[in-house]
Amino acid sequence: MSRKKHNHEINAAGRPVPLEVNGQPQVPFAGVGKYRPSGSKAAPPIRTCADYPDSGDKRVADIKTALERCGIRDGMTISTHHHMRDGDYVANMVFDAAAELGVKDLRWFPSASFPVHAPNIRHLESGVIHHIEGSMNGPLGDYCSQGKMRGTAVLRSHGGRWQAIQDGEVHIDIAVISAPTADPFGNANGLRGPAACGLLGFALADSRYADHVIVVTDNLEPFPCIPWQIQGNDVDCVVEVDSIGDPAKIVSGTTQLTRSPDRLYIAELALRFVTAAGLVSNGFSFQAGAGGTSLAFAIFLRDFMREHNIHARFMRGGSTRYMTGMLEEGLVDFLLDGQTFDLEGVRSMRENPAHQDTSPFTSYNYHGKGNFASMLDIVILGATEVDLDFNANVVTHSDGKLLHGIGGWQNCLFGRTVILPIPLFRDRIPVVVDKVTTICGPGELIDVVVTERGIAVNPRRTDLLDAVRDAGLPLRSIQELKEEAERVCGGPPAKPELLEKTIAVVKWVDGTLIDAVNQVKG
Amino acid sequence: MSRKKHNHEINAAGRPVPLEVNGQPQVPFAGVGKYRPSGSKAAPPIRTCADYPDSGDKRVADIKTALERCGIRDGMTISTHHHMRDGDYVANMVFDAAAELGVKDLRWFPSASFPVHAPNIRHLESGVIHHIEGSMNGPLGDYCSQGKMRGTAVLRSHGGRWQAIQDGEVHIDIAVISAPTADPFGNANGLRGPAACGLLGFALADSRYADHVIVVTDNLEPFPCIPWQIQGNDVDCVVEVDSIGDPAKIVSGTTQLTRSPDRLYIAELALRFVTAAGLVSNGFSFQAGAGGTSLAFAIFLRDFMREHNIHARFMRGGSTRYMTGMLEEGLVDFLLDGQTFDLEGVRSMRENPAHQDTSPFTSYNYHGKGNFASMLDIVILGATEVDLDFNANVVTHSDGKLLHGIGGWQNCLFGRTVILPIPLFRDRIPVVVDKVTTICGPGELIDVVVTERGIAVNPRRTDLLDAVRDAGLPLRSIQELKEEAERVCGGPPAKPELLEKTIAVVKWVDGTLIDAVNQVKG
Repeated sequence: MSRKKHNHEINAAGRPVPLEVNGQPQVPFAGVGKYRPSGSKAAPPIRTCADYPDSGDKRVADIKTALERCGIRDGMTISTHHHMRDGDYVANMVFDAAAELGVKDLRWFPSASFPVHAPNIRHLESGVIHHIEGSMNGPLGDYCSQGKMRGTAVLRSHGGRWQAIQDGEVHIDIAVISAPTADPFGNANGLRGPAACGLLGFALADSRYADHVIVVTDNLEPFPCIPWQIQGNDVDCVVEVDSIGDPAKIVSGTTQLTRSPDRLYIAELALRFVTAAGLVSNGFSFQAGAGGTSLAFAIFLRDFMREHNIHARFMRGGSTRYMTGMLEEGLVDFLLDGQTFDLEGVRSMRENPAHQDTSPFTSYNYHGKGNFASMLDIVILGATEVDLDFNANVVTHSDGKLLHGIGGWQNCLFGRTVILPIPLFRDRIPVVVDKVTTICGPGELIDVVVTERGIAVNPRRTDLLDAVRDAGLPLRSIQELKEEAERVCGGPPAKPELLEKTIAVVKWVDGTLIDAVNQVKG
Repeated sequence: MSRKKHNHEINAAGRPVPLEVNGQPQVPFAGVGKYRPSGSKAAPPIRTCADYPDSGDKRVADIKTALERCGIRDGMTISTHHHMRDGDYVANMVFDAAAELGVKDLRWFPSASFPVHAPNIRHLESGVIHHIEGSMNGPLGDYCSQGKMRGTAVLRSHGGRWQAIQDGEVHIDIAVISAPTADPFGNANGLRGPAACGLLGFALADSRYADHVIVVTDNLEPFPCIPWQIQGNDVDCVVEVDSIGDPAKIVSGTTQLTRSPDRLYIAELALRFVTAAGLVSNGFSFQAGAGGTSLAFAIFLRDFMREHNIHARFMRGGSTRYMTGMLEEGLVDFLLDGQTFDLEGVRSMRENPAHQDTSPFTSYNYHGKGNFASMLDIVILGATEVDLDFNANVVTHSDGKLLHGIGGWQNCLFGRTVILPIPLFRDRIPVVVDKVTTICGPGELIDVVVTERGIAVNPRRTDLLDAVRDAGLPLRSIQELKEEAERVCGGPPAKPELLEKTIAVVKWVDGTLIDAVNQVKG
């Protein structure tokens, strides 16, 4: 690898990345499956029951007391999870309590943060929080994009977050787990209570590897809280609060389908592609998210399965009432669920043993003995940009602004056929471009790009090209799609004006750096 | 502590214990809750998905191939579990394969071994197995008792085995997990298949902490095998065999109640005691095993609960059809199950979400942030001997012979009221004695001894004594019970003639040595 600028190196994706971030040495991306980890997993301290109440009652008065019990001090790493999404109240309570305790320079390590967490900007300003590592949706992302955060943001996939914790790359001092239901011992789940969110998989690594674990709940049950998605044997303190979140913003009452004719057409083309390629057959598996096009695809797929009497072994979701409907109808044996998106998802997970909650360990962790992401036959994902090498971006737009997290996107790229059903342009800005602003996923893992103006198959996938050659599909090269986008939009997107400062880095699933995001001018 | 003999020390229970066992330094028992562990948990190597098949199919031809893939070599530690009990075929296959591979000096680390494993004596003789650490029921125990095993046996409770693995005291190189149902990725459970045993909790620590994990099954299902009691993400290889065990010896078709009038009377007295002491009230919890007296107690308790309309929050078992009946009848909210003893237990666990499988982590591990053993209101246990200090023995008899394992017995001593309903004598040998042959549990944790000739309450439990004083129960001092036993039997048991050689050590729940077992003469 060649040097680009001081303390940066050009990685295997051709991007300059820093060799040190927030004082920690970094490894540049070396290619898919090329980096070989060494050493042992993180090892939390050995505890003894002698230090915990025989009664099993670990309740303390409030979050402040719990943080004190867990020995909070300057510079520690505090983690939270995002199953409460934009309805979460707990992460704000935590940093308010830390501020009251006079603690400084904390690293906040959420699995993701949302607009609801905007009040924490004052704790970034006052020095209570040093920086955030984790997806920042909304005002916090904007704050970071403006170069105002002291440290550098580190963006990881859901699987990458497990990997980072497991590998000891991120040591969590105190994990705070919002729990829709819990018992005084700390057993917890997301299935019941006013803030029910389904599962707590994003917090599982935190509960296992953090030095200290605090469970915060507004729905305390007597021991045992079953199922114990989080096990009390990993928990130090339990705090009862009036409310951990706003139910209306945690899961929606219903999921709405897209009505955009373009999106519906893209979803229809994607379905025509997978059926023509022979990917929909008995025992197959698929992943589809809760986004508009993805959901439309799932519904078209359902109709196709009904019509042709085809039955899937498992589906992977973010669950919605459409997916639970397919499960109950018997179209699919199992639903492996990473997060529930509506109340039907929560109900189904509570009642149906074939609706299995998962964690990033089972689904995504690249530093395990396999994970099930690579077993999916059909994977439907989005992107903000795709380029001529099929590289894709999900975190920035063409204007260079950091606007989204990675989620499970990188992890899902390991599926057998990865399809991006995306519009050719958004707001008259091309989505298919020469080079993506930020590489989040290497093109070798992206198989098909489906747009309203045609379908481009990655030339590496000669098998797919052969399978669909005579199916009457609007096949185009990615170059043709790019030219079409530029024709419609009047040229390629303007190049963003970037400043010298790196405000965020993007990790690949193995902990290496695949790209960096610089501050945008103005 | 004072020295007794070379390299031995008198521990806090007054017993001489070696300071080194099988080349590893040992800590003498320091008192209940006195030993403070330090350091970090065991940390297995970081793996990468790049080394495992994308298809998720980890099947290899046979156990021999799997052992080779896992890099078996001289001196390694191989673990197995005992959910197949005396019906297990797999542990023998493993050491036969190791012998074929010419490997020597293995440490066999079963959660327990049974008479079915007697063929492994030839591998002890030939040097394939160096020694066994784990309960040895039957011929293997006899072999060890005769001083024939090269190393020293180490007896641990179920919780102590988790603690030893977790704390890195025992490093497992290769774990072999017999799985009644599994998928090619290695997800496994005990709920289905010809060798269904209910759960696989005893193998959970092995799957998480071993360097390499092999799943052996006779009932392969397509991915995903749900529930995944063992997670394929921890598994290296999957082997299909014709049969992993003899169903008739794994779980019984039905559980039989004792018909002994003495045992029934002891069970009845135990029930009278707990009701008189006010321990049976709404929301209470209890543990009862599948042994004759324990089972009779459970049935008397059930009848009492029905009659007085009392409802329990949870019960802990070894499950039998009597316990699943109580659960289904609504007398108890939850059954927290450590192993299923009959087919009804397996069916109930498969069908009833309130029948929760547990692992020694949730139930027993003393080096966690609490466990639920200490939350049980009533705990019914057995013993081979009890002495004037209420110390109890479960591993040897008065003749000094090592005949039993510890199971969860030590861990259960942390319950709120621990009751030993035991006969005053067996085969005309007193059970209540001056000093127990081997201390497995310190008297301070044993509250009540119930015999057919009276009930002795530990004088420390003045609360219990006060509660039952006027209940018309046959209360005796432990001294009186001992005298009564000696009167009936014509004196105390003959002291065994012990040789110098320590053949086994007994660990306390925290990994310290509570006692040692010497070879018996002749």
